[in-house]
Amino acid sequence: MTPNQPGQQPKVPIAGVKNLIAVGSGKGGVGKTTVAVNLSIALSRLGYKVGLMDADVYGPNVPLMMGINRTPMAYGERIQPLDQYGVKLMSMGFLNPGDKPLVWRGPMLHSVIQQFLRGVDWGDLDYLLIDLPPGTGDVQLSLAQRAPLAGAVIVSTPQDLSLIDARRAIAMFEKTAVPVLGLVENMSAFACPHCGEITPIFGHGGARAAANAGGIPFLGEVPLMPLIRETSDEGRPVVATRPDSPEAKAFMSLAPALLAQLARGRRAAPQIIQD
Amino acid sequence: MTPNQPGQQPKVPIAGVKNLIAVGSGKGGVGKTTVAVNLSIALSRLGYKVGLMDADVYGPNVPLMMGINRTPMAYGERIQPLDQYGVKLMSMGFLNPGDKPLVWRGPMLHSVIQQFLRGVDWGDLDYLLIDLPPGTGDVQLSLAQRAPLAGAVIVSTPQDLSLIDARRAIAMFEKTAVPVLGLVENMSAFACPHCGEITPIFGHGGARAAANAGGIPFLGEVPLMPLIRETSDEGRPVVATRPDSPEAKAFMSLAPALLAQLARGRRAAPQIIQD
Repeated sequence: MTPNQPGQQPKVPIAGVKNLIAVGSGKGGVGKTTVAVNLSIALSRLGYKVGLMDADVYGPNVPLMMGINRTPMAYGERIQPLDQYGVKLMSMGFLNPGDKPLVWRGPMLHSVIQQFLRGVDWGDLDYLLIDLPPGTGDVQLSLAQRAPLAGAVIVSTPQDLSLIDARRAIAMFEKTAVPVLGLVENMSAFACPHCGEITPIFGHGGARAAANAGGIPFLGEVPLMPLIRETSDEGRPVVATRPDSPEAKAFMSLAPALLAQLARGRRAAPQIIQD
Repeated sequence: MTPNQPGQQPKVPIAGVKNLIAVGSGKGGVGKTTVAVNLSIALSRLGYKVGLMDADVYGPNVPLMMGINRTPMAYGERIQPLDQYGVKLMSMGFLNPGDKPLVWRGPMLHSVIQQFLRGVDWGDLDYLLIDLPPGTGDVQLSLAQRAPLAGAVIVSTPQDLSLIDARRAIAMFEKTAVPVLGLVENMSAFACPHCGEITPIFGHGGARAAANAGGIPFLGEVPLMPLIRETSDEGRPVVATRPDSPEAKAFMSLAPALLAQLARGRRAAPQIIQD
């Protein structure tokens, strides 16, 4: 848990949840949900108890990517999360299936996010990942200010345009005293499956360079490969269904990098030591 | 201009602006701004007077892609748009340069968008394109309800996930009686520059199929090519700086397809005919 910052409202912990981690991005379409889904499964495969909360109420993609869409049960006032590939799940997509437009006004948005955080029976979890909406809007700011976040992971492509927006997201978390646990480069260089030639369609290495320049940890890169898109579209995440593929291994290697940063953050946190 | 719909507030025209066209997407990162920028320049190259208003206040990418970032002048109460590659421009990025996070609460957002629409000295324009934020949030809904839109263009990749979100955006415009002028497939099949082999990284043909299935016009497809990303990142849009490239021609061909749909919409609009 992050210690409460001076001058801020105390952040009430979520009972049973040890580490609440936001997965954000400066802009959409960079693969934030793909990273959140596969990173959740990667953590679960390492033996941890993991949940994934889809806070992207405008475009909830977790149900499709996880290949599950059922209305959750409620016992009393607690909503039961769904369970898929070893990860507990909650998404607005479960409550409003189909392609109806989700047009939320601010206050409705805040209450649904709070419901998802505190009204869902998450049980005991080592890690609860939150798939944020892209950007630095109301929902992201409220979560950064109010939720007891252990930190945030930022996803970007190597492209300049994506990195400029990623910096905005990083600045938002820093301003609200949420530790940035690291940057992930997604859609990294593409290798032609026919000839092997590498084409940096969205560039390559830009996120690592930006992380170094900004003093942010770099968690790893995930290549731009059709298998990732295909398994995402099919609801069969690559880490769960093709764990031996190079694509899955790229996601798997993000997990220990993230855990190392979390451990580092805990060591760095101010403590009262009693001898 | 769209005729006012029964039961709606009358939509006040913007003086001098003949056609107000929204460019939207169900999700971010699909190349909405790249399409808006290159389509604006394409229309300008056809001899029309064109403006582009960047309504993506959270991640305003127009300044970078257009390679211009200066603080606009104001005469009296009217802000003067910038001018680049023959297109008049306004963006939040001109007013708040750098990588500071833009955290807007709803009401501030609405007033800045209204300012951009009505407080900017657009002059006489045949087409004013609005680069919407991705998704179906507050800003998009307000614009769809209140701005005198001639119609909306929706950008999607061929990927299922992008198309599901595109359908939400289409539904939002249809619900608010804004004609959907057509769907653009961006990041269509990738051809390896080394061996020529085509890899459908994000798929191919999905948007055309979705348009046909939904009774929406299909405006064309733009290939996933590094030249487009490079010229976008450099602020030298491909239609302006490499007009003879196949990439530029893909964007150029969107313009007549759009104009045909606009003309069709006008013919279909109810008219009082006096002999």
